[in-house]
Parts: sequence; C-alpha cells; structure tokens
Amino acid sequence: MERKGAAKIRLGMVGGGRDAFIGGVHRIAARLDDQYELVAGCFSSTPEKSRASGADLGLDPARVYDDFAAMAQREARLKEGIEAVAIVTPNHMHYPAAKEFLKRGIHVICDKPLTATLAEAKKMVKAAESSGALFVLTHNYTGYPMVRQARAMVAAGELGAIRVVQVEYPQDWLTEALEATGQKQAGWRTDPERSGAGGSIGDIGTHAMNLAGFVSGLRLEAVCADMQSFVEGRRVDDNAHVLLRFEGGARGMLWSSQVAPGNENALRLRIYGEKGGLEWAQEEPNTLWHAPFGEAPRRIRRGYAGSDGAAGRVSRIPSGHPEGYLEAFATIYTEAAAAIRARAAGTALPEGVLYPGVGDGVDGVAFVDACVRSSARGGVWVTPAR
Amino acid sequence: MERKGAAKIRLGMVGGGRDAFIGGVHRIAARLDDQYELVAGCFSSTPEKSRASGADLGLDPARVYDDFAAMAQREARLKEGIEAVAIVTPNHMHYPAAKEFLKRGIHVICDKPLTATLAEAKKMVKAAESSGALFVLTHNYTGYPMVRQARAMVAAGELGAIRVVQVEYPQDWLTEALEATGQKQAGWRTDPERSGAGGSIGDIGTHAMNLAGFVSGLRLEAVCADMQSFVEGRRVDDNAHVLLRFEGGARGMLWSSQVAPGNENALRLRIYGEKGGLEWAQEEPNTLWHAPFGEAPRRIRRGYAGSDGAAGRVSRIPSGHPEGYLEAFATIYTEAAAAIRARAAGTALPEGVLYPGVGDGVDGVAFVDACVRSSARGGVWVTPAR
Amino acid sequence: MERKGAAKIRLGMVGGGRDAFIGGVHRIAARLDDQYELVAGCFSSTPEKSRASGADLGLDPARVYDDFAAMAQREARLKEGIEAVAIVTPNHMHYPAAKEFLKRGIHVICDKPLTATLAEAKKMVKAAESSGALFVLTHNYTGYPMVRQARAMVAAGELGAIRVVQVEYPQDWLTEALEATGQKQAGWRTDPERSGAGGSIGDIGTHAMNLAGFVSGLRLEAVCADMQSFVEGRRVDDNAHVLLRFEGGARGMLWSSQVAPGNENALRLRIYGEKGGLEWAQEEPNTLWHAPFGEAPRRIRRGYAGSDGAAGRVSRIPSGHPEGYLEAFATIYTEAAAAIRARAAGTALPEGVLYPGVGDGVDGVAFVDACVRSSARGGVWVTPAR
Amino acid sequence: MERKGAAKIRLGMVGGGRDAFIGGVHRIAARLDDQYELVAGCFSSTPEKSRASGADLGLDPARVYDDFAAMAQREARLKEGIEAVAIVTPNHMHYPAAKEFLKRGIHVICDKPLTATLAEAKKMVKAAESSGALFVLTHNYTGYPMVRQARAMVAAGELGAIRVVQVEYPQDWLTEALEATGQKQAGWRTDPERSGAGGSIGDIGTHAMNLAGFVSGLRLEAVCADMQSFVEGRRVDDNAHVLLRFEGGARGMLWSSQVAPGNENALRLRIYGEKGGLEWAQEEPNTLWHAPFGEAPRRIRRGYAGSDGAAGRVSRIPSGHPEGYLEAFATIYTEAAAAIRARAAGTALPEGVLYPGVGDGVDGVAFVDACVRSSARGGVWVTPAR
Repeated sequence: MERKGAAKIRLGMVGGGRDAFIGGVHRIAARLDDQYELVAGCFSSTPEKSRASGADLGLDPARVYDDFAAMAQREARLKEGIEAVAIVTPNHMHYPAAKEFLKRGIHVICDKPLTATLAEAKKMVKAAESSGALFVLTHNYTGYPMVRQARAMVAAGELGAIRVVQVEYPQDWLTEALEATGQKQAGWRTDPERSGAGGSIGDIGTHAMNLAGFVSGLRLEAVCADMQSFVEGRRVDDNAHVLLRFEGGARGMLWSSQVAPGNENALRLRIYGEKGGLEWAQEEPNTLWHAPFGEAPRRIRRGYAGSDGAAGRVSRIPSGHPEGYLEAFATIYTEAAAAIRARAAGTALPEGVLYPGVGDGVDGVAFVDACVRSSARGGVWVTPAR
Repeated sequence: MERKGAAKIRLGMVGGGRDAFIGGVHRIAARLDDQYELVAGCFSSTPEKSRASGADLGLDPARVYDDFAAMAQREARLKEGIEAVAIVTPNHMHYPAAKEFLKRGIHVICDKPLTATLAEAKKMVKAAESSGALFVLTHNYTGYPMVRQARAMVAAGELGAIRVVQVEYPQDWLTEALEATGQKQAGWRTDPERSGAGGSIGDIGTHAMNLAGFVSGLRLEAVCADMQSFVEGRRVDDNAHVLLRFEGGARGMLWSSQVAPGNENALRLRIYGEKGGLEWAQEEPNTLWHAPFGEAPRRIRRGYAGSDGAAGRVSRIPSGHPEGYLEAFATIYTEAAAAIRARAAGTALPEGVLYPGVGDGVDGVAFVDACVRSSARGGVWVTPAR
Repeated sequence: MERKGAAKIRLGMVGGGRDAFIGGVHRIAARLDDQYELVAGCFSSTPEKSRASGADLGLDPARVYDDFAAMAQREARLKEGIEAVAIVTPNHMHYPAAKEFLKRGIHVICDKPLTATLAEAKKMVKAAESSGALFVLTHNYTGYPMVRQARAMVAAGELGAIRVVQVEYPQDWLTEALEATGQKQAGWRTDPERSGAGGSIGDIGTHAMNLAGFVSGLRLEAVCADMQSFVEGRRVDDNAHVLLRFEGGARGMLWSSQVAPGNENALRLRIYGEKGGLEWAQEEPNTLWHAPFGEAPRRIRRGYAGSDGAAGRVSRIPSGHPEGYLEAFATIYTEAAAAIRARAAGTALPEGVLYPGVGDGVDGVAFVDACVRSSARGGVWVTPAR
Repeated sequence: MERKGAAKIRLGMVGGGRDAFIGGVHRIAARLDDQYELVAGCFSSTPEKSRASGADLGLDPARVYDDFAAMAQREARLKEGIEAVAIVTPNHMHYPAAKEFLKRGIHVICDKPLTATLAEAKKMVKAAESSGALFVLTHNYTGYPMVRQARAMVAAGELGAIRVVQVEYPQDWLTEALEATGQKQAGWRTDPERSGAGGSIGDIGTHAMNLAGFVSGLRLEAVCADMQSFVEGRRVDDNAHVLLRFEGGARGMLWSSQVAPGNENALRLRIYGEKGGLEWAQEEPNTLWHAPFGEAPRRIRRGYAGSDGAAGRVSRIPSGHPEGYLEAFATIYTEAAAAIRARAAGTALPEGVLYPGVGDGVDGVAFVDACVRSSARGGVWVTPAR
C-alpha cells in the first residue's frame, strides 16, 4: 500500500495537540503508507498549546494556527496549501471546523461520530454535498483486512440471507467516575455539551453499529434501547442494551459498555445467515472465523489460505505478522488518498477503494439519537430519523 | 463425591427409551458417583419400546412398566420399591407423570423446563408442596464447579453490586427445517403441543436465564423480547433476543438461538459489577475468568490455584483433568442424593448442598411465558407472572 | 456406549484405597458405561485401610482382602468370583500383583507405566502371553474421541507421510519439594524404588510417548535425552528434554516437566506431514485442529461436522456438551469389556475396538530406560531395548 | 514515540527493491514514528530495478545508486548525506555492504542474521568496533512491548532462577519445493551461497534463539541439534530440533520449522523459573501470560493493568488497540534513532533504550554454526564458537 511514484498529499490537522489521544493516531495513520505530509495545523484552541504541538512536530511556525477558520482561509490561498485536513477535535467542534474547509474545497478527513447532534449532522451533509471536496469519516474498524473480507463474503452470498447480527463493544475504563478526577478524555466524552447526548452509545456504539452495517450490508429499521448511567453523577449512558431490527427481517443485538471490568476494547461482530456464520473480534483482528453450515468452522487468517483479495488489497505484510489498529486506521487514510488523487485527476475511483463518508456519519448520529429517544421513553421501538 | 458407605438409592425412570437423548444422560449422571441404582422404569408410551429399553438396561421385566401411573402405584407398594424417579419425557408430560409419584411420596428428579405451560407449572408447585417428597429440577449447568465458584464469588461480594448480566445460548442444529425430516428431537422440540409456546427460549433460553439468576443472585423484574421463527413453517421461535431488567437496577441481555451456524452448545455468561467481572463458557467449563477492576484478569481453573471450596466440593479429579457435562449433571444427582438421605434421616441438609427446585422451575416457565407475550405484542416490556 | 443387555462384568481392584488418586478414577471409569460391577478388592497393604475402603464402597467384607495373592486365589475359586481386576498400585507393585491374577485366568486392567523396571516389564510380557486372560494398560488418553479421530486420519493418509511429531506434557505440581512435606502422591512418584528410574519421564513422559505413537503409527528408533532434577534433593528427573527419531525418518521432540509453573496437565500433540497438520491438547479435548496444507485450518469438534466415525464410536453425548478425562478413561474400560466379552464368547473383537496392551507397556518402559541411559551418558543417542 | 522537535534522520537503504519483502517493512518501520526520512538508496544490484524502485519511492534520481560502494562514497561526501543506512539484502551481502558505510562513519541498521558465515560475522565485529558509527541489528521481535516486559520481569527476579526455556518458530511456507518454482524469497533463503549453511535455523531459528536470550538473560553454553531437509532436493535444513544448555544450569528446547502445515509465523516463548512462568506468542503479541507459582495465571495485556513501564515505553496506543509486527519493528528504528541522536550529541543513551547490536549478531551466527556442526556429526553436543 506504499505510495508508488505519486506526490505526497499535503495535510493539515485541527485538534490533536499534546494530551490528545486520537490526533497522534491520525498522524501515524497518515504517515504509515507514506501518502501524506503533515504541513499545517491548529492543534488546540489554546494558542500556546497549538504552537508547542506544532513545534513538537517540526512544522513551520507560520503554518501553525490559533484558529481553524484562519487556518482554512490562509491555507486555501497558499500556492502549496493543504489539500486535506484531519479533524480530530471533540465531537461538538467537528461541524464548525469541517464547514470552513469544505467550503474552500479542502478535503476533510473527520473523526467519528460525525457530530454531537442530529441537527448538525444534517448541516454537515449539506456542507459536504455543496463542496467539491471529499468527506471521509474515520470509522477505522472498516479498514481491517478481515473486516473487508467479511463484507465481501456476505456480499457474495456466502452466508445466504442474513438472519441475525450480534455486535458488542465493551470497555471498562469508566467503571469508576474517572471524569471526576480531571482526566481529559473522560471529561469531554461524558459531557453532553461536547460529546452529544450519547455516552457509550455515541463513543463506541456508533463504531459497533457502523461495523455491523458495513459487513452485513443491512439497513437499520428500528431500535429498542435500554440505557443506563451506572456511575453516580454520570451525565450520559455508560452502558447500552439495544435490540435491532433491520430492513428485510434480520434482527440483532448491540451492546456497548464502558463499565464492564476486564474488557479493554472488545468490539466483536457475529453474523449468521441461512448458509453460515462469521465471527470477528477487534482485539485479534487478523482472524476471521467462517462456519459454513454443516461443515467444520475455518479459521481464516489475514494473508493465509482462505484469505481473499478484499483482505489482500489492504494488507501490507505476510500472514502471521500481525497487523493491528494503526494499520487499519492507515488504510482509511490510504483509501482516502486514492480517492483524493482520483478526484484531482478526474478519473474513476480505483476498483475496491472504499471509505466511510458523510452518509455513514448521519446514520451513526441518527442511531444514537434513536437510542436516546427509545431509552428515554422507557425502552420502546423507535425508527432512526435519517 | 463417591458414595461412602451409604446404601444406593433405588431409582426409577419415566421416559428415556431407545432414541431418546436425555434419558441416557440421566442414567450416567445417576451412576457416576455410585449413588443410585436404576431398578424400574416406564421408558416409553409404546409398551414394546419400554420393554426393549428395560431389557437393554438389564432390569427385572417385572419392574418395566407400560404406564407411569401403574408404575407409581406398584412401586409405592413394593417393600424395596423405588425411592426416587427421574422424569425425562417431553415437557408436556412432566406434570402428569410427576404428580403420580409426588403424591405417593416418591422423590422426583425432573428434566427442565418444569412444564410446557405456566398453568401446569403452578399445579406442579402445589403437587410438590403437598408432597413429603423432594422435587429436583435438572438445571444441570448449575452443577459445574466453576459455576458454583462464580456464584460463591458474587455472593461474597467480590464483584461489588452487579450492574450488567450478559448471557447467551446459541446453537445451530435447527438452521434448516430438521423437524420436517422426521428427526425425533427436532420434532417434539418445535411442537408447541409437546414443548410449550417457547421454542429456543424454552429449550435453551430457560437454561441461560436460570444460570444468570443462579450466579448473580438477581431476581428478574421485566423482559422485552423480540423472537423470530426464521425457518419457514417453524411453529415456535428459533431465535430470541431479550432485554432484561432485574430487581435492584441491574440490566442484562439474553440471546438464545438454534439457527446460528458454527455454534454447538455455546452457553456463555458474563457478569459485571462495580468491582470486577466474571466470564464462563460451557464449552470450556473448567475455566472461570475473573477480572478485578484495575488488575490483570486471572484465569481460574477448576482445582488449580484460585479455585475455591465451592468448586472443590463438586469436583472429582485434579486440575488439568477436564470434567465435563456428564460430571456436572451427575453433581445434580449427587446433591439430590444428599438431600434425599438427609430427608430420610431427618437431618439438616449438609453444608453446601445445592440443587434447583420447583421454584426455579416456575421462574423458568414464567420467563418463557413473559417472553412469548412480550414478543407477541411487538416487543414491549412485560413482567413475569410468578 | 451404555451396556445393552449383557451382564455386568465382575471386577476386583488392587490398590486405590483412601488417599489414593487413581483408584477412584478407575472406579468411575468402570461404572460410567455400566459395564462392570466392583465386587472385591485389596485396597491397601495396610489391612485396616483396605477394610475401611471396602466398607466405604459398600463391598461384602468377605471379599475385601489384606493381600492380593490371597485375593487372587480365593476369587479364582469362587463361583461368582471376579472376572477382571484393576491394578492401581504404585508402579513397582504392578508386576507382583498382575502375575497372580494372570496365572489364574483373571483379566488384568493395569495402570501405567507397565512396571518400574525394564526387567519386570519383560516378565510381565511373559506372564501375559502365557495367560489365557487379557491384559489392558490404561493409557487413558487414547480413549479421547478426538485422539481416535486423529489416529484414524493419519492412518487414512490425510496428512501424507509424517515428518515431525511434537509432543509435550508439562505440569507444575513438583515445582517445589512437595515430597519433603509428606504428600503421598509426591512421595512415591519421586521415589525410584517405587516409581522406577524415571521421574517425570516415567510418570507423564510415557503418556506423551504413547500418545505420539498411537496417533502417528510410528515406531521409535532412537532418543537423545537431557534430563534434570531441578529441585534440590529430588532423586528422579523433574524435567526431561528428548529428541526423537522414528523408523522411516520422521523426527520429533518430547518434553515432560513437573516444574513448569502455570501448567496443570498440559499434554499436547502436534503432528505434521507432507499434506497437513493436526493439533490436539488434553485440556481442551473435544477439539482437534486440522490444517490441510494450502487451506484454512479447521476446528473439528467432537460430534460436530467434520468429526468422524472413529470419534463417534467412543462418544456418549452430542457436540458442544464437553466430554472429559473420566469419559476417556471409561472408554478404555468399555473397550476392555467388549474384548472380555468377545473372548468369553469366542468371537472376534468387534470392529473398531482398540485398547493399549502389554506391548505398549513394554514400549513405554523401554522408552524410559533409554532416556535414563541417554541422559546419564551426557545426552547421547540411545536405541530403546525392546 | 513520535518524534518531538528533533530533526528527522537522513536514511539510505541497500536492497529492498521491487519484489523484496523486508525492504518495505524497514521503510514503514523507519517512517512510523516520524524519526527518519529516506533520501537515498541502492535498491537492487540490477541498475534498472534500483532506479525504478527509487522512482516509486519519490527519491531524487541523483541519490539512487547502482552500486552500494559508490553510494557510501558519495553520500559520505555530501553535506546533507545520509546519516544511517538500512541494509536489507540477502545475508551474504550484509558484510560487504555494511563495511563500506561503517568505515565512513555512517550508522548501519542491518537485517538479521548478521552474515551468512561465522568468518564474516567476526569481520563484521571488527568493522563495527573500528567504526565511530553505530551498528543495529533488526531482531525486531525484541521490539514488542510485551517482550520488553517479559525481559524486565525476569531481570527483576519475578520468576526466580530460570530453569527451563522452551522456544519455537514453526512456519509452513516451504512444505513443498517452493524454491523450484522460481519464487524469489524461497530461492535465496534455501541457497547456502546466499543464505548461509542454515536454512530454517538461520532464517527463523536465529530469531527464536535471540528472543530466548533477550528475555531470559541467559547465555548459551551448548547445543545438540538434529536437523532435516524433508523436502527432496532442498539444500538446507527445513526443520531443526535443538536441545539447549545454558550457562548456570538452565535447559531448553528450540524448534524451527518451515514444513509444519497450519503454522504461519508461530514464534512462541515459554520461560519457567523457581517462582513462576511466562508465555508469549508472536501472533497474539499484545498478551503476556504470567503464572506466579501457586496463584492463578494472569493475562497481562499491553497498556492494561499489570503492564509495566518497560512495555509502556515502547507503546503508542491504549490497551485493546492491537499493535503488531510493524510497530515492534518501528521500535527498533526509534530506539536506534535515540541512540544515533545521543551519539551525535555526545550524551548518554536515554534510560531504557535498548537495541540488538553486532554482538547479538555474532551470537546468532555462532548458534547456527554450532547447530549445523552438531547435526552433521549425528547430533552431538557442540559449544558455539564465539
């Protein structure tokens, strides 16, 4: 997946200063396949912090900004200004930041969830649609090779009609009131003003829902959610139990939790159809279980016998050499680079290139909104308002 | 757990003839610890089959019956008649058979679910309460040593207050319309007349629910169920998704399925509290995972360091020598034997002896009934009618 | 595998009194499929202990003996005397006890290893050959269904010519000087007078070697062993590293250890041929991994798709209901029962019946002898003296 | 581990053109933490191929060379010439290439094994010792966080005195005569002229041996090896069984194989001491098992509770977000960058920085040499000639 001959894409970043988690991940992801060069940034709303972060990264101080709107304006005018921007702020800043770049034709690579509110999500769609630039949402789990293979297998009918989708994403880092200790990540992620009305359901449930849809190809029809804030004083859910109904009759369950001791980042998907089942777990991502009904289950490993072209397209190294989270994240960036280059060249998207977009983002925010409404009404069936 | 000095208990059996599955399991379970001697039986409603089965087992032909009522009458009058009877018929025959023995003071060891209907379940309670005999329900999964340990750990407060209970029991043997092929097990288990209104929820969902309650010590408050019959023409559910609310505020999810390819008998329980989590899976039953919050998870194995007295009481062999399903089932029988002997001797139940009874059975049937009603009404919250 | 119609075989036992481990296992194994009835025993060389043990088991006191020779004499003369005897003493008593029964035509079911010395092993062969009775050695791991399947697959050529055999059996219970604490099992198993010259290599290495030969069908040609007694003062090896050469060119490694912390009873076999590989682990015995070269590996589970007749013949319950150590042990007894009945009836051994015999026992003792000699000479290649 | 403020190190590469495997890995590793900039290269001994590879990578054509000696000469004279060079050729070219750079004071980052012969290895030591530049050998598995933690735990005495080291590295890609098909990797790796006298033992056995020494801290004293070429016509071993004796009395086993179907890259290390055991497997690298004797084993995961500073120093992302092979490889590069910068600044190596050097390389080549000699003499004990 290494760049072959093409020039690197000039990248800017909004958010991701010192102390942030996801900004550093985006930078590694952008760099891993040598597709991008980070040349500008507004790393914090605190000017000193933004500048210190820019210096850490060895950027030209003239291209380290205090304000993302100023950054968008100036970069758009520079001859060698950024071609794309990564937006890695807390959720409530995604839309205000993204719109500044979109309206100037700068491609946006935005962290998930799309926005903190459904109203903003719809504005983001408009901003993206009216822009000539691309909008890429980093639902990074879709970048794992075996997730790609699972999707391809379902699409090829290897499971037959899908009946049941079980997806879960338990963590344990909010088992206690970490937000009360001043920990930055816990702070904004449990603050509805910055994170949105969903807690675990927004932070990780959206990943789980996106993954389920990405692999199964199914559209969500209705949810029935029972959400809790187990930790006293917490302002958003820290555990969500959701029943899922899909268009066409398939059913599912989704569980997100941040209070399940012993779970790190245990996203796991199981899909069952008339002809077989698939299982995948994020913490052991190079393995995909395939159980054709009536046969012994097969352990398919990335790059090994049984692994197909959809996985191979987004792999870097041979089987048995584990690729992980950063590689999957990098794949989103590298797919985006292919799309950006195709757009620039006016050519079709190369075969197989795939990335989550603004539509996936709206689906995610609508899912959160539906779950919140369902649970608030005592756990009734609600249709997502897309 | 081997018998030490005491005489064997004389046992009869109703059901369990040639072709049956669970009857043979009960016989091994009764024999394994040398606590019982099978001396009589009515193995089938077809007289020839009953007799042939009795001959296979080497029983005295005079004690092989065509009719369970006749068996109860005669055995009750014999000087060395049976002291206990195992009832291993399809569900709808549990009550008619059990009451004949209960009213004659013969202890009953009955397969689950208790009955096919809630009305019958309530009659069974009365029959058991008005009898001087014991009633034991073979929720066999409660016999696993690591399940016993899990229960003891929760009871001792090692997890703190319980917040979340995730339990599931997927299988795949009904992925296709096996009942249409004449297969006997599939036939009665998908026939509401013989099995009750629940399909997967009655056959295996009751086991899952019982296990969740046994380990967590929580009482079910309400369910919201979405149940399907994915296989065309099937008359009962083959997949059930259930949200659980427990008294005191804990929440849970239960999934039972018989159409999940790649799953054999994958009962699995996960419990999370304020202070830690536990995980147990029936297919690898000698292992219990314990994750104290803030510490590295521990793999506790039966008989090995970390395994406690509650597990040791019901273990037969050292760690690393796997005990399985039959041993757990035998534990129910051996616990019942201890109870029967204590009853006969007029002494207290020995410390630690534990077995599921008629109350657990009613809880199970009420759970099925509530799920069926919830799902029939489109997936609303329903309180079990106990 | 339940007895069908035939009478139970009358069984005696030598050894296995209170405090013993393996005697209780043999009794459960004899009972599980209802094939035997224990009617006599000499449970200890201490008369009081023998009698107390007989009383625990509910035996007729007249058939509880202080002396195994007296037991053999009297039982041989009784009209309904024992037909078979289980010998479960420490190793050095196997031969003295067995010969008394063999010469009187009483079938012997003997724990492993065959004897404590090679000289005695050869005498045992003669005693067995000159007797009309059967000799069965309880290499119980050969009774696991998936071990049977592995053997059948190799025999059917599914792996092609075998190249490499990796077998290991680590434990940790002798990590410290347990024998110095008075623990009975540790005492005799580390005493060369009672156990033989091999420590871990005799106690568990023989199991590993037997399993490797049973599945691979290969004959051992030479060994090169490096054995240690890591615990100070220990008189036998507690860790053994052995290189294996097989007739025909295959090579292997065997590791036995009783000082490997974290290992319970971790017998594990891996076999690789020109066309594929197999892996099996005793602590998860219902699973067999099959990796046909160039295809995704398959997880074959007992009773599930991919599991064959060789496994099915010795299974009792459906897939997903784990069978364990006791069931595998019981299979040795049940196979022996089939052989005893065929011998009594003068008919051929029923198809598929398989059990380890005195020849396997000599192979095991010769293997230990060769390892001890190899290691004593500094780790040179030695041919087993069969 | 991201670069903070310091300038990127200018890097060249020898080898690693189109079709190569490991060159691309080195480039990602160099880039991942943003520590290096690739600015020059001699990617192939075929000039066209070297140039095409340089163009793929976007290098200035003036710095793409046909000849590594010319590259060393010119780059040494350039004002902004390379500071370090990555050598990723087949083994027999490591020394000829490295010496050109070492003698000009350019740091060398060299793939393993150090050289194809022991004679060359000793020359490499001299070249490294007489150079002012650093020599880094990419035994990349030492870069895994949980390997670092294992080493730190052993060094801190958590296992007590080490007794047993079990290490293995099975693969299956040479199960058939792949070298006969023209496959490039198989070609040179089975050619003793290019690879050295060791086949599997040199290619992967050296990794296993290095890992065992890195974690245990033990020095190898003697080996006894039995090596085979199972595939007809193969000129080097494809399977090696080795007994290990360490200074101080610990013992071990090493198995390397390229003909074990079902194995991808299954490097696995187990270490047992008086007080506990550790297990680590490369294909699931974020997990380290720790079994303190007498306690339940703990599953330690990178970044999660129980994971220590030695692991944390070389981690990039939170627990549950799997890091893999490329990250571990990048750690070697990032550690080298720290060493290069300290050397340039004349300061001490920062605390914790650790990388394999030329001494480790000689140990590896001496190990291969000893195994080859041992096996050639029929499997006798041989002391490595360091």
